[in-house]
Amino acid sequence: MRVILCGFGAVGQSLAKIFESRREDLYARYGLKPRIVGVFDSGGGAAEPSGLDMVKLVATKKERGSVAHYPGGAPGSRAGDEMISSLDADVLVETTPSNYDDAEPGMSHITGAVKRGMHVVSANKGPLALALPSLTELAAYNGVMLRFSGTVGGGTPILDYAKNSLRGEIITSFRGILNGTTNYILTAMAGGSSYAGALEDARGKGYVEADESLDLDGLDAAAKLVILANWVMGMKITLPDVDREGIRRVGAREVKRAAAGGRAVKLMASCGGDGRKLAVGPAEVPQDDPVCVNGTLNAVSFTSAHSGTQTVIGKGAGGTETASSILRDLLDIRMGMSRG
Amino acid sequence: MRVILCGFGAVGQSLAKIFESRREDLYARYGLKPRIVGVFDSGGGAAEPSGLDMVKLVATKKERGSVAHYPGGAPGSRAGDEMISSLDADVLVETTPSNYDDAEPGMSHITGAVKRGMHVVSANKGPLALALPSLTELAAYNGVMLRFSGTVGGGTPILDYAKNSLRGEIITSFRGILNGTTNYILTAMAGGSSYAGALEDARGKGYVEADESLDLDGLDAAAKLVILANWVMGMKITLPDVDREGIRRVGAREVKRAAAGGRAVKLMASCGGDGRKLAVGPAEVPQDDPVCVNGTLNAVSFTSAHSGTQTVIGKGAGGTETASSILRDLLDIRMGMSRG
Repeated sequence: MRVILCGFGAVGQSLAKIFESRREDLYARYGLKPRIVGVFDSGGGAAEPSGLDMVKLVATKKERGSVAHYPGGAPGSRAGDEMISSLDADVLVETTPSNYDDAEPGMSHITGAVKRGMHVVSANKGPLALALPSLTELAAYNGVMLRFSGTVGGGTPILDYAKNSLRGEIITSFRGILNGTTNYILTAMAGGSSYAGALEDARGKGYVEADESLDLDGLDAAAKLVILANWVMGMKITLPDVDREGIRRVGAREVKRAAAGGRAVKLMASCGGDGRKLAVGPAEVPQDDPVCVNGTLNAVSFTSAHSGTQTVIGKGAGGTETASSILRDLLDIRMGMSRG
Repeated sequence: MRVILCGFGAVGQSLAKIFESRREDLYARYGLKPRIVGVFDSGGGAAEPSGLDMVKLVATKKERGSVAHYPGGAPGSRAGDEMISSLDADVLVETTPSNYDDAEPGMSHITGAVKRGMHVVSANKGPLALALPSLTELAAYNGVMLRFSGTVGGGTPILDYAKNSLRGEIITSFRGILNGTTNYILTAMAGGSSYAGALEDARGKGYVEADESLDLDGLDAAAKLVILANWVMGMKITLPDVDREGIRRVGAREVKRAAAGGRAVKLMASCGGDGRKLAVGPAEVPQDDPVCVNGTLNAVSFTSAHSGTQTVIGKGAGGTETASSILRDLLDIRMGMSRG
């Protein structure tokens, strides 16, 4: 399986390391033989139709800052677009940062690859949050698969659980904690911190996105809600359809009052009930509700017709975790390809 | 799809009701057209190659106590064995009570059906706990599928989550609360009840099995642990391989002391670590660990190589819930049959 990798940050490097360390295991267990034939970052790209050396690739990035310095690599911001339009590959793996204004550069990467007949695995939420219904249609029209397990829950297979493990069920609603950063801040506030102190602490630990609004104003949680609603409930919605509020207005007094009543203030993302309303905002949740997790954990509760409410909990982010989701998607595509 | 249904208690009746109420939906969505061609309970059986009338079947059971009174039905304890050896069907659904001595009558139903080339869905844990490795081999030898989603977690797809949603991952260990009855008792004790009082309360609510040892001595939890270890970890083990202790020796003082330290005493089933040790027994768990659920809830935490620890929580039992798992297995078999 020939792979073009867009972006070579924590997720891309973790994926390369998994490919390398599990080379024999992946082939023996699943018949998967991944080859990264092209990779690019903001500094440029490197391509090799017979497959790049993953150890050398990771070392080059670490020592020189960009994969453009890989032997035979090419610098320049156009490297990615050129690669996607000319290099032959089976799957494009998109891991550049999420952008909720115009979803670029991920959007162009994905549409370019789909139009050339490549399957796509995206860990980038931007294009999906802004255009999942039309991207799904574009992929179907071009006869390719579009997968994005890593966008919700990091390595925790929340999308797959709802779609496949609950096959035959009728999911009527769901709600969850989909952003680890805000959950960390709210958990610290429940422990007595002020909002400012908790935010500073989260910044110090590297939990907060460079654009803090993505976390604090609930954009990241809303993007994940959009992806879940499309994938799980078959809705055709995008980011503007979500009624969204972040955590900036949550006060220490409010958090303390909730705790005294056995509850916790959480940034909840929810879908369902009347008219399948979609919302992200602070809400009080009983502390003994399984969905009420602390720290950076994520959790989603699905309520369905026959089997009641079920909750899935796990780490919501992380390079290796998200890479494990991409691997899952590649296995899914591998199986789809072999079925023809 | 022609189904023979063994047992017509809460689970079997719920399955018949789902078949009836979702008849059109199941055909439109999944191409599934289930027909119960034979059903039997301890009083006798009823068969109709073109499919029994499910509404009439449920009414007969309710009014007369046995499906043997269905028009054309036959009384007698041999009805089931005769049906399995002579009636043509695609799938046998086994829902008679679990028995951990010799696993009968479920064991004979399953082996009889497999040898005649029928696929099998079992909600009965007995045969699996005592002989899953050999039953798996027997099914493979006869080219049929053996599925048992409903045996662990009721309607919560715990087995499917670990096997399919975590595809590509390497699960290194797992532990969980697999018996709702004992969890209800321990939760009540944490709230101040005595063991005797909590047990009496659970009996009153109908939570305790007729053979109380199955719950209180950890047999039910151990059976589920065996099924998980075989299915998820590829181990070939049976019930005697589990180091097992129940909750009879848990004292009120011990529970109180744990609570004072932010912990709870739970009946934990675990697999992994050194030599993949399998054990069921009371253990103290931090109250803020996601696996530490209360009441009759079940929970399992899986720890894996790339994506850390993930927890699945849901109702562990119930007629409709377990029937929804059987439906899931039938859809799985339906897809396998169409692939050939």
